[in-house]
Amino acid sequence: MTERLSAPLVVKIGGGDGLDLDRICDDLAEISSRGTRLVVVHGGSAETNRVAEQLGHPPEFVTSVSGFTSRRTDRRTLEIFQMVYCGQVNKGLVERLQQRGVNALGLSGLDGRLWEGPRKAAIRIVKDGRRMVLRDDYTGKVERVNLKLLRDLLDSGYLPVIAPPAISYEGEAINVDGDRAAARTAAALAADTLVILSNVPGLLEDFPDESSLISSIPSNRVAEFIDVAQDRMKKKVLGAQEALSGGVRRVVLADGRVERPIQRALEGRGTVIGD
Amino acid sequence: MTERLSAPLVVKIGGGDGLDLDRICDDLAEISSRGTRLVVVHGGSAETNRVAEQLGHPPEFVTSVSGFTSRRTDRRTLEIFQMVYCGQVNKGLVERLQQRGVNALGLSGLDGRLWEGPRKAAIRIVKDGRRMVLRDDYTGKVERVNLKLLRDLLDSGYLPVIAPPAISYEGEAINVDGDRAAARTAAALAADTLVILSNVPGLLEDFPDESSLISSIPSNRVAEFIDVAQDRMKKKVLGAQEALSGGVRRVVLADGRVERPIQRALEGRGTVIGD
Repeated sequence: MTERLSAPLVVKIGGGDGLDLDRICDDLAEISSRGTRLVVVHGGSAETNRVAEQLGHPPEFVTSVSGFTSRRTDRRTLEIFQMVYCGQVNKGLVERLQQRGVNALGLSGLDGRLWEGPRKAAIRIVKDGRRMVLRDDYTGKVERVNLKLLRDLLDSGYLPVIAPPAISYEGEAINVDGDRAAARTAAALAADTLVILSNVPGLLEDFPDESSLISSIPSNRVAEFIDVAQDRMKKKVLGAQEALSGGVRRVVLADGRVERPIQRALEGRGTVIGD
Repeated sequence: MTERLSAPLVVKIGGGDGLDLDRICDDLAEISSRGTRLVVVHGGSAETNRVAEQLGHPPEFVTSVSGFTSRRTDRRTLEIFQMVYCGQVNKGLVERLQQRGVNALGLSGLDGRLWEGPRKAAIRIVKDGRRMVLRDDYTGKVERVNLKLLRDLLDSGYLPVIAPPAISYEGEAINVDGDRAAARTAAALAADTLVILSNVPGLLEDFPDESSLISSIPSNRVAEFIDVAQDRMKKKVLGAQEALSGGVRRVVLADGRVERPIQRALEGRGTVIGD
C-alpha cells in the first residue's frame, strides 16, 4: 500500500495548439510541492508542422490500413522532429518548471535507451484508396522503459520530462506515438493515474461538439470507444487501453487549455477511463 | 592516485563545419570500451547559423569591448539555438554513440541545473567603432556544475553528452560559451585532460596557415596567447586557461576532422596547453 501511494503520477502534455504550458507548469509545480512524484511526457506536433513548413520540408501524414493516422517520418523529418520535440518544446518546459522551483530534467527516449522498441520494417498504408507499403520510415513503438534510470532520477529529486523519439533495438532514432509511450511509461512505473492533456475537454461523442463529452468509460468497454474517437484521439484511447492492461488504475483524458488542468483531471473532469 | 586515474576525460566537440562526427564517435566508442570514463560537451554554431537564416531570423554577432566575439542572443535566437544544440546536434551525437554500443545520455545545462551561472545584466559591445550596451541578451557564464548529477550518471555507466544553454540563477536559459563551459566541467570533475576539437589543427600562429601550428604552450604563458588567437579560437585559449587554473593538468586543442581525433590529441598532436 505504501508503495502504491509513492507511485508517481504521469502527465502527458499534448503537442496540439492551444494548450496553456504556463498554466500546466504552474499546476505541476503546485502538485510537486506537495510531495507527489511526477513524470512528464510531451508532444510537439503542431509546432513540428510549422517548422517543417518553414524549413521547406512540409509534413505528410499517412493512414494505416487499421485506420490510425501517423506522421510520415523520413530521415529529414526525424531531424526536424528532434529539433522541435527535444530542443524547443522539451527545453521550454524544463525552463518553465525550473523557474517555478521544480528541478526538471529533460530527456528523449534515445537518452540512456529510455524508450526502446522495434522500428517498423514496413508500414502498410492506404493512400487515395490504394494500399501501399513504406519501407524508409523511421517509426516504431516503445516496448521497454529504462525504469532504473527513471527511478534513480525520481529518487534524486528530479522531475523527468520526456519526449520522443525512442530508440530502436538497432540504435536508430524512431518516431513513436507520445500517448502510447506515456502509457508504457505509466505502466512501467506502476503509476496509479495517467493524465493525458490535449486541446479538447476529453473524448467527444460527436467531435468537435465539446458538449458531447463522454465522462467515463469502464475498463471493459475501452475497445469499443477506439472507433468513436477521431484522428489523434484514437491513439489516446488506445494508449489508455494499454495503460490499463499494464496495471494503471485510471487514465484521464483532459483539457490542457484551462486553469489547474491536472488537478481538474484528478478530480474527474474529462473522460475518466478505467477504475 | 587511484582517484586521479579514474577521473573522466572531457571532450569538447566544436560546432564549426568540417568536424567528422562519425569518426569522433568511433573514437569515443573505442576509448570508452577500454574503460575510460568520458564526458562530452558540444557546440552547434554553424548549423545554428544556417537554421536561423532558414527560419528568417539571421544570426548576428557582437564584439565585446575586451575583443571577444559572441552570438547576439535575443529570445527568438535562444529558441533556435536550443532547437539545433539540444535537438538536432545533441540527439544526433547520442544516436551515433548508441549505435556504437555506448550508452550516451544527452542533457542541456538547463536539465537538473547542470550548468548554473549569472545572466549578464548588460553586455558592453563595440559596433561600427561605437560603444553600446545590450540589455535584452540571454547570455551568461557557468559558475556551478551539478557534479553530483554527472557523477551519478557516470557511476551508472552513462556517457553524458552536454550542450548549452545553461541556466541562470533566476531560472532563465542562457547562452554560454561551450569551450568555457567544458573547461568548468573538466575542472569540476577533476579531469586530467580536456580535449577541444575544432576544424583547425590547433592554435595557429598565423591563421589560417595550418603549418603555423603552435605545438605547446606552458601553463604560465597561456595569457599571452589569448592575443595571438583569432575569433572563436580566443575563447578556446581562455577556456584552456580557466581549466588549468581549475586544476586540469592539460588542455589539447586538436583537429576534429581526422581519423582517431581524440587519441591523436592524447598523443600530443595539436596545441598542448599546460603540463
